[in-house]
Amino acid sequence: MERTLAIETPQKIGQEITLQGWVNTRRDHGKIIFIDLRDRTGLVQVVFVDAKDAKDLRPEWVVEIKGLVKERPEKLINPKLPTGKVEVEAKEIKVLAKAKELPFDTGTEDLNIGLPVLLDYRALTLKHPRIQAIFKAQEAIAEGFHQAAKEIGCTEVFAPTISASSTEGGAQVFRFNYFNCEAFMVQSPQLYKQIMVGIFEKVFLFSHIYRAEPSVTTRHLCESIQMDCEIGFVDFDELVFLLGKTFAKTIAYAQKKCTKELEFLGVAPSLVEGKIPRLTMREAQQIIFERTGIDHQQEKDLMPEDEKEISLWAREKYNSDLIVITHFPTKKRAFYTMPDPENPEYSLSYDLLYKGLEISSGSQRIHEYNELVAVIKERGMNPENFKMYLQAFEYGMPPHGGFSYGLERSTMKLLDLENIREASLFPRDMERIDFRLPKKEA
Amino acid sequence: MERTLAIETPQKIGQEITLQGWVNTRRDHGKIIFIDLRDRTGLVQVVFVDAKDAKDLRPEWVVEIKGLVKERPEKLINPKLPTGKVEVEAKEIKVLAKAKELPFDTGTEDLNIGLPVLLDYRALTLKHPRIQAIFKAQEAIAEGFHQAAKEIGCTEVFAPTISASSTEGGAQVFRFNYFNCEAFMVQSPQLYKQIMVGIFEKVFLFSHIYRAEPSVTTRHLCESIQMDCEIGFVDFDELVFLLGKTFAKTIAYAQKKCTKELEFLGVAPSLVEGKIPRLTMREAQQIIFERTGIDHQQEKDLMPEDEKEISLWAREKYNSDLIVITHFPTKKRAFYTMPDPENPEYSLSYDLLYKGLEISSGSQRIHEYNELVAVIKERGMNPENFKMYLQAFEYGMPPHGGFSYGLERSTMKLLDLENIREASLFPRDMERIDFRLPKKEA
Repeated sequence: MERTLAIETPQKIGQEITLQGWVNTRRDHGKIIFIDLRDRTGLVQVVFVDAKDAKDLRPEWVVEIKGLVKERPEKLINPKLPTGKVEVEAKEIKVLAKAKELPFDTGTEDLNIGLPVLLDYRALTLKHPRIQAIFKAQEAIAEGFHQAAKEIGCTEVFAPTISASSTEGGAQVFRFNYFNCEAFMVQSPQLYKQIMVGIFEKVFLFSHIYRAEPSVTTRHLCESIQMDCEIGFVDFDELVFLLGKTFAKTIAYAQKKCTKELEFLGVAPSLVEGKIPRLTMREAQQIIFERTGIDHQQEKDLMPEDEKEISLWAREKYNSDLIVITHFPTKKRAFYTMPDPENPEYSLSYDLLYKGLEISSGSQRIHEYNELVAVIKERGMNPENFKMYLQAFEYGMPPHGGFSYGLERSTMKLLDLENIREASLFPRDMERIDFRLPKKEA
Repeated sequence: MERTLAIETPQKIGQEITLQGWVNTRRDHGKIIFIDLRDRTGLVQVVFVDAKDAKDLRPEWVVEIKGLVKERPEKLINPKLPTGKVEVEAKEIKVLAKAKELPFDTGTEDLNIGLPVLLDYRALTLKHPRIQAIFKAQEAIAEGFHQAAKEIGCTEVFAPTISASSTEGGAQVFRFNYFNCEAFMVQSPQLYKQIMVGIFEKVFLFSHIYRAEPSVTTRHLCESIQMDCEIGFVDFDELVFLLGKTFAKTIAYAQKKCTKELEFLGVAPSLVEGKIPRLTMREAQQIIFERTGIDHQQEKDLMPEDEKEISLWAREKYNSDLIVITHFPTKKRAFYTMPDPENPEYSLSYDLLYKGLEISSGSQRIHEYNELVAVIKERGMNPENFKMYLQAFEYGMPPHGGFSYGLERSTMKLLDLENIREASLFPRDMERIDFRLPKKEA
């Protein structure tokens, strides 16, 4: 008999069906046993009128159940389940796989465990409906970005993650032996996406990025997924517009697709539909000073508390969870950032803040070969290490720029999670690859 | 004035427009100069009636041209260009970026250069319309897989590429120092995608995979893109069906989207619409023996020439460029492969061949925890190295299986390319990361 999914049961009242899934919870009422069966579409209640058929069943056992779908009396409808108006009276049960006893109760509405346990039992904790919802939302964010990038005419490309030189900071990079040469894991696909503007004009890509940062924070991972755009034949104002618009569309798509998940997680939708305010860094610093009396106007960058404060301002004044900050000091940005021709001390750079956190960074890029080589030398780097990148500029590169969003960070902020590790299926940090790493001396 | 793309020019006869793009070729006729301008949509001819306006222009310069779109006389229509019935009479030109002299002629229909030069000048050679077409087809394959996987109900997931143990062959893996512990780049996302079946039942993912194989062949890379599916609550026959169907849909989608590119490259569409034939390995060996008189019936695997021969058979007999081979010897397959219960010497495994080459490999998996641990030990491996993977099986794993396709290999075979390096934007092999690596002693 063809499988019926949990979510389909309310349409099958009076019919015999076959369910397949996991025992989510089991309630023993003596002669009768109830289980909530979980499959990829949700939960449905199964009743065993003869308790002995189900007395061995335990949470996470995988079972196939043949049974009859019955309407429940009005007063017994469970409004918390989309399938709450029916239950399935089990006729036959087949155990497909057993599970060992769980280390903690996973049948509760929230998983009441700390982060280390959440991650130590990742293959188990990911099964919890609230955790599953996080990664359904993550999938929707990825899809939303895919669509938003396509809408502005970008071609999807696939960039390598193994690099012959460390281009953006030497210490924080993973290096390894590559057939007796030294190689590196990329810290971003930046140089390759810029090259690809010389080919397709507008490109987007998903890439793994690697950062060997020896610090543990709530918003950094050693391996993460980056969603990148790079766009040719544009000016700075268009870039700023596309930066905000692309992200707003991404989030709007995810919110629409995951209304159910967001509701389930109790997350209020983000305000991303209206106009996105835009300030220079100095304007932002001045507003923050006026609002708080704390003077960061001499700082070369926004501090984390500044990002929070100016985001509050954007929300109050523009009803927006997004705000773009532009014109960071040239020296604080990557070498390929175009200085502002009107005041080269500041650059044609931008950050996008989302609910108080930097979610994207980018800039217009230097596109003139000689200027780029000069900057590389000025910063004490060797143009030889940028040979393929520079080749693109030798053979005609249009004015261009771009931006990128972290997938885990976007997920974290969309869902108001406290720690970025909650937004990564199997987070890697300096202390953990799946499990906590053994402590070793340097 | 808003930019007009090359492809839009035939709709703008009699209008003044602005073009932006690269000088693809330049033809000097004394008083008059013609250039073919290239943008992301193709080529359009621009004529400079006053040669001095264009005398400095050289291939790959990036320019903005204001001009008048004119219909060409019937006899001058260039049928090779989609924009061949018009030309743009230049009124104004602005140089956005110059290019240095090209090392070889890129304006010819084919790039007449060998593979090393093709790759040494990758940032330049990727601009050639024939090379661009390869990567438009690659994008379409990725999109096609995305859609095909969604159609069968898979959730997209993002698996890590840093691993704490080397799980599928020790020598051919890149290892590195990870905060004073040893870590590895994954050779496949296999273990993580199986874990995710315990969560979402059906998953798909794009992943980078890394193989430190010290050999140079026409069909292997050290870093490549893998497209994976893993599916729960299925039996072997369904898996074999989904293996072929998913790939057939992927290729059919790409062929439909890239009709123009395939025509341009002179590639005949693959035969993927009909029924996909299916043989066991032993049946295939017997057919090959009958057809060729060469007896490989004692071999434990199909040899490359066997794959070619049986693919010919499939094409002749079934008019299919695809064929599935099943039941490879259990010992020749990965530890997690389910042995055939009726004859455990052979396994519930399969390969998909596409135009004579293995394009996918997979199997039904062992889903019972104790059986899996026993196999790991039998093969001399340590269950401790599979701790997170095994955790998924401890807590209830349904019957499942899966398959994966290499993106570059799919691109190569779709387009009848001779070397997989042609199907990777920036191929990594034991001799090359962008450029040829320096030779070093071990």
